[in-house]
Amino acid sequence: MNYFWDEPINPIFVLSKNKIKLIRSLELKKNRAAAGLFVAEGEKMIFDLLQSGIEISELFYTKELEKLVLNTKSSAVLELVSKEEISRISFLKTPSNIVAICKIPIAEINWNTLKNELTLVLDEIQDPGNLGTIIRLADWFGIRTIICSENSADLYNPKVIQSTMGGFARVNVHYTNLENLLDQALKLRIPIYGTFLEGENIYTAEIGESGIVIMGNEGNGISPNLASKISRKLTISSYPTDQPTSESLNVAIATAIVCAEFRRRIK
Amino acid sequence: MNYFWDEPINPIFVLSKNKIKLIRSLELKKNRAAAGLFVAEGEKMIFDLLQSGIEISELFYTKELEKLVLNTKSSAVLELVSKEEISRISFLKTPSNIVAICKIPIAEINWNTLKNELTLVLDEIQDPGNLGTIIRLADWFGIRTIICSENSADLYNPKVIQSTMGGFARVNVHYTNLENLLDQALKLRIPIYGTFLEGENIYTAEIGESGIVIMGNEGNGISPNLASKISRKLTISSYPTDQPTSESLNVAIATAIVCAEFRRRIK
Repeated sequence: MNYFWDEPINPIFVLSKNKIKLIRSLELKKNRAAAGLFVAEGEKMIFDLLQSGIEISELFYTKELEKLVLNTKSSAVLELVSKEEISRISFLKTPSNIVAICKIPIAEINWNTLKNELTLVLDEIQDPGNLGTIIRLADWFGIRTIICSENSADLYNPKVIQSTMGGFARVNVHYTNLENLLDQALKLRIPIYGTFLEGENIYTAEIGESGIVIMGNEGNGISPNLASKISRKLTISSYPTDQPTSESLNVAIATAIVCAEFRRRIK
Repeated sequence: MNYFWDEPINPIFVLSKNKIKLIRSLELKKNRAAAGLFVAEGEKMIFDLLQSGIEISELFYTKELEKLVLNTKSSAVLELVSKEEISRISFLKTPSNIVAICKIPIAEINWNTLKNELTLVLDEIQDPGNLGTIIRLADWFGIRTIICSENSADLYNPKVIQSTMGGFARVNVHYTNLENLLDQALKLRIPIYGTFLEGENIYTAEIGESGIVIMGNEGNGISPNLASKISRKLTISSYPTDQPTSESLNVAIATAIVCAEFRRRIK
């Protein structure tokens, strides 16, 4: 058993008990919302963040990364800490050498981007793993905007943040009322696509390079009030089409196949 | 607090303490291997299983499903139990009305299928969620054989079984030494594909309708000793190709995009 006061290697602790408590409290959504803060960890992740528009308020790092950190430009408060201290604030099973406290960005939806690019709209995605995977693949396919319904899984959950593999630093994620959003999109004549078990074959349907693609809830698919606003219903056929199979594809898997197809079509 | 002896609704319990203990022990791989048994749950799942070659040894169900169960043909021992009893043996947060104890199938790899169909080979997939998702999507795309390296995640883990959404009833999953497998495949001139960060663009590469597709470990990709046996290295390009992005796609996501492309090509 090690005690705080008899630890020989790191006699000086930078982190106060209150600071540790604050950071650990950011595991819960209500605390993140109240503080406007979230936690991100790991070398690659933080260097992705430093390139992004997301503001880091505090950066805790060990000696191993000191040179790298001091060479970066950031307005963050820098705190050199021990490995022992990192492990006290980390949410990872195997803590890395760097932890950042970041400000939850408050950004308006950019309607110019929505008019000219491919955008994902997520209708009540509940599983944090699915959300993280979707952000990661959106990043891969150069999708810069994801808009979630208000009750979707929370991006700023430490597990979701890590599972995006840095993707959230390049993809803007918004939470809003989707009915209002789609009404506005219809007014602006932005095409709205959605995947259904019965629709046009995605590989032969006419699709453009831009527009909104709606992906539905894990159990219930796209809500009827949103489905009615869709201009093009797409389907990913099973193979062979006449054989019994799973009832559906996982939502992140379906999202990947749809995004890959939109990108494949671009010459 | 309810006690066993003062429960008024279900005075007769069918399940002995030892039986409950045996079933719950099947959460661990060593116990499943020793007993040759695994657990599957849920109405859709069990009816998928009843259509499959997998042998159910015991079936526990509540009154709600009595008619349905008695109308099925199965050599399983049938046990009508209470909801309370189901919840004692279930591994689900929300127990269903039916739980099956099944025999782990012992099947030889069918080389005729490997010669004529598309087969997935999984090299050290570690995450049970990824394995379950891959089996589910393989089922969707009519892939009947998945071959895993011996150290891959275990299919018969209750969580993996459930996440396949019944897919494991239609997809044969084998565990074997992959080097030997690929040597044999090379002798039989079966094409061997693999995805890499640098390879031919999957959308323009020549691919056939059958062959083996290798997918690699979450962190390290395909092992070098297997990579050397691959006849065609494929890549899923990010978009736009010159922009910073996540280092890679999740392995289940990449598998889905590859399988979808093999099926899209079939006219």
